[in-house]
Amino acid sequence: MNRLHYLLPAAAAAALVLAVLACRYDGRSDERPGPVAPIYGVGLPEGYPEWPLVAPAQEAAPLDELRAVVANEVAIRAYRQGVRPFPDGSVLVKRAWKHLPSPDFAPASIPGQATTVQVMVKDARRYAATGGWGYARFIDGRPADAVQHRTCHACHASRVRDRDYVFTRLAP
Amino acid sequence: MNRLHYLLPAAAAAALVLAVLACRYDGRSDERPGPVAPIYGVGLPEGYPEWPLVAPAQEAAPLDELRAVVANEVAIRAYRQGVRPFPDGSVLVKRAWKHLPSPDFAPASIPGQATTVQVMVKDARRYAATGGWGYARFIDGRPADAVQHRTCHACHASRVRDRDYVFTRLAP
Repeated sequence: MNRLHYLLPAAAAAALVLAVLACRYDGRSDERPGPVAPIYGVGLPEGYPEWPLVAPAQEAAPLDELRAVVANEVAIRAYRQGVRPFPDGSVLVKRAWKHLPSPDFAPASIPGQATTVQVMVKDARRYAATGGWGYARFIDGRPADAVQHRTCHACHASRVRDRDYVFTRLAP
Repeated sequence: MNRLHYLLPAAAAAALVLAVLACRYDGRSDERPGPVAPIYGVGLPEGYPEWPLVAPAQEAAPLDELRAVVANEVAIRAYRQGVRPFPDGSVLVKRAWKHLPSPDFAPASIPGQATTVQVMVKDARRYAATGGWGYARFIDGRPADAVQHRTCHACHASRVRDRDYVFTRLAP
């Protein structure tokens, strides 16, 4: 055998790897560089730490978290005007942290380590099968697995279907 | 006595009332229509419900509150860049609500009725006597009394003087 016999399988393997990588990139939304969630292809929206607050929340044990939902302009306007269902382009982001006693003031608890960042994106056509919402859960900036993402919509649908599948109400 | 004898004291009383009202209006900041806090003359900043989140917090009994601190652009930039003391023009607003069990999801608590809105405004010259900060506490849109406002800086100074008198850290 000459060297070509060795090189051809290697080249084929390299092509396969490139094809797989290309497929993964196809799943990414154009506007959002960075990893996206399985199933929905939803990424971490750019600039969400600057978005206005919808409401804080607290989650008891075993999660023991402080949380805050923020929303982009489209979603905040819908919240303020009571528009439901939320219009396409609405994005909600729930940030979460471990619940930590404040070292400065005994009765207070403050955000500890960040835990998850969870995203809901409204696109009535793209996500028609899940009430118009695409979901994503990120842990340390990386999307959780498909098994976790399969649980998102079922829970929202069973509890808050009548509020366009959105748990969080605008804080008064 | 003719009618003038009755009218003069009434006119004097009316003038006094108007003068007192004018004094109260003098205490208002030019940029912020609406009532201002005693001592500091700090009002509710316009548009603060649109400001980005610094961090949520929880306050245990007896207050039993969920809270969220938001900040204007000047203050958020200082937070992000670790600039201390906060520059003039920094404004922090702490929103607070009663801590309410979620009707939709047992382990969660959500904001109930709004309780206080508390403001810190940085102006190193105007508020030189209180570390450069002016304070305000509003309840149902009305400023609390002077007695309450006299407690603000003493508590901040005794606990977080080394962090430019600011309790809330930027959530990670």
